[in-house]
Amino acid sequence: MPDEIYDVCIIGGGPAGVAAGVYAARKKMRAVLVAESFGGQSLVSAEIQNWIGDIALSGLDLAHRLEAHLKAQNGTDIIEGERVTSVERIEGLPTHGPAVAEPRLWRGVTGQAGLFRCLLASGRVIRARTVIVASGSRRRRLGIPGEDRYDGKGVAFCATCDAPLFGGKPVAVVGGGNSGLESVVDLLPYASKVYLLHRGATLKGDPVTQEKITAHPNATIIHGATPVEILGDVFVTGLMYRLADGVTATLDVAGVFVEIGSVPNSELVAPLVNRTPWGEIVVDHRTQRTSCEGVWAAGDVGSGLYKQNNISVGEGITALLNIYDWIHRTPRPGVATTWR
Amino acid sequence: MPDEIYDVCIIGGGPAGVAAGVYAARKKMRAVLVAESFGGQSLVSAEIQNWIGDIALSGLDLAHRLEAHLKAQNGTDIIEGERVTSVERIEGLPTHGPAVAEPRLWRGVTGQAGLFRCLLASGRVIRARTVIVASGSRRRRLGIPGEDRYDGKGVAFCATCDAPLFGGKPVAVVGGGNSGLESVVDLLPYASKVYLLHRGATLKGDPVTQEKITAHPNATIIHGATPVEILGDVFVTGLMYRLADGVTATLDVAGVFVEIGSVPNSELVAPLVNRTPWGEIVVDHRTQRTSCEGVWAAGDVGSGLYKQNNISVGEGITALLNIYDWIHRTPRPGVATTWR
Repeated sequence: MPDEIYDVCIIGGGPAGVAAGVYAARKKMRAVLVAESFGGQSLVSAEIQNWIGDIALSGLDLAHRLEAHLKAQNGTDIIEGERVTSVERIEGLPTHGPAVAEPRLWRGVTGQAGLFRCLLASGRVIRARTVIVASGSRRRRLGIPGEDRYDGKGVAFCATCDAPLFGGKPVAVVGGGNSGLESVVDLLPYASKVYLLHRGATLKGDPVTQEKITAHPNATIIHGATPVEILGDVFVTGLMYRLADGVTATLDVAGVFVEIGSVPNSELVAPLVNRTPWGEIVVDHRTQRTSCEGVWAAGDVGSGLYKQNNISVGEGITALLNIYDWIHRTPRPGVATTWR
Repeated sequence: MPDEIYDVCIIGGGPAGVAAGVYAARKKMRAVLVAESFGGQSLVSAEIQNWIGDIALSGLDLAHRLEAHLKAQNGTDIIEGERVTSVERIEGLPTHGPAVAEPRLWRGVTGQAGLFRCLLASGRVIRARTVIVASGSRRRRLGIPGEDRYDGKGVAFCATCDAPLFGGKPVAVVGGGNSGLESVVDLLPYASKVYLLHRGATLKGDPVTQEKITAHPNATIIHGATPVEILGDVFVTGLMYRLADGVTATLDVAGVFVEIGSVPNSELVAPLVNRTPWGEIVVDHRTQRTSCEGVWAAGDVGSGLYKQNNISVGEGITALLNIYDWIHRTPRPGVATTWR
């Protein structure tokens, strides 16, 4: 229904968004979830061992299960394959209170209340009283010469996806966190040699993964290394890097896997909410509220300390239940029914 | 090993405790988990429809899956069938810093650091540098005459467990929240009549469940009712209640299901940590830290707004990862490596 005003528009089909969508249906709210795809960033994982309650499953399995759970609810509208490009607040319209029919009651409590308009890439517009931003994050790039030119021609961002393409060839992984370490583990069964480059003096990833790598004869860790340029002809042929003492060196590799972290997908609400210097949406960790009345955030796009699938699920549920309370003005100890 | 000092002692085998235990093993921490049983309060649920990623599963299924996931880690010691009765701080011993071998480095930063001693009901003692309290909550009781006397003789606290015992008989459910409403739904296929008594004027549980009840010919909702006494001979024969205007009345029922909420199992750390007036352990919602350095809390025992299995999982993971950071002094934006 094009003129419908939803109680909540949920942006994102990862663990946080799906969890909110399932609970919205259980709460009989008029909800819509907009997702390019389901499963979030774990979609590309070959094996997830820390989805609590399952000893192991693939990222694709998790995505399918999230999608199936949401669709089984039969209550939350789903707009699939679409992206929200921006969220706007329509001043002068109500979002708060038990029904949209009571505009004067809650309007202007903080000066921020309003109806929201979510603009989709297709041009479609969704109107909703509240928004949960659960748009996740995307991979950070090195920003060095050759990265764009050889993207897909040796430069890769997903070892799980692309490791088989480098059978018998030497590769480099850039990044000393968990994603870097796990990429090395993913690549070792295929590549003839795996170099792990990272800027620091010690690796940040889990010890359990570090041990696997240091014990492997085909893995070499290069500490204090800053990538300078990705070299190639048609495909990648090398990675030039600089050490802390200024010395540069080149590795002969056919692949460069970039695993240096993530950028929150928070641009779509940038004018509305406060963000951290890293682009995360600042949330109140008890309620998942943002600085903008009517907008909640959950999952990797938010300022939670740890980005994990199960944590995102909890945040999505918290956001949805807090919206339910906020709409119905259910008092909870220490939480205002009006903003802040 | 009786003399072992663990990095972390996890108290509880519900979703929060198990999640922490799985992550502790992945982080290669020396961890021990003490649990009377696995699965938490959901153990008694016939069907759980809001464990994200599974359309439906029983409480027993969930318990088994949590237990299996934890045991598959092969890293966290498990003490099953045991209960922690109290946690004591041993003054003058270190808990903080990269290794116990460096006692002077971190001792006394806040005056609260110390090694913890967890006392088990069996007399066994566990020593650990940090503690995660994930001991959940238990059912609240009415505290009226007849409740203790007829406990198990018509007075029940788990409709899922005991509904089949009341086939063809009239029963009463006390409590207008979700657990009360869901108990009514559980009982309707068995009982000849289900009365739902609650103190307020409107029900607090989910609309989706309310609709099921109000549409059913065998369910009657009594608003503004306060239970006064449970009557019986050998078994329950009635429930006396008082309405807001002071009038008392008696329902002829064979069963009384008490569903009036929960009490956090926080007594074991009562002298150490700040608690809410409801007995919840006050936590910092970003890190799950308590007011006592070295003690974290997660799940239903904590001051989180919403008590849900998936939220507990997220909190257990956050607590464990924050302990890992705290022990290794990994800086995170806005979070001190020393307390507060």
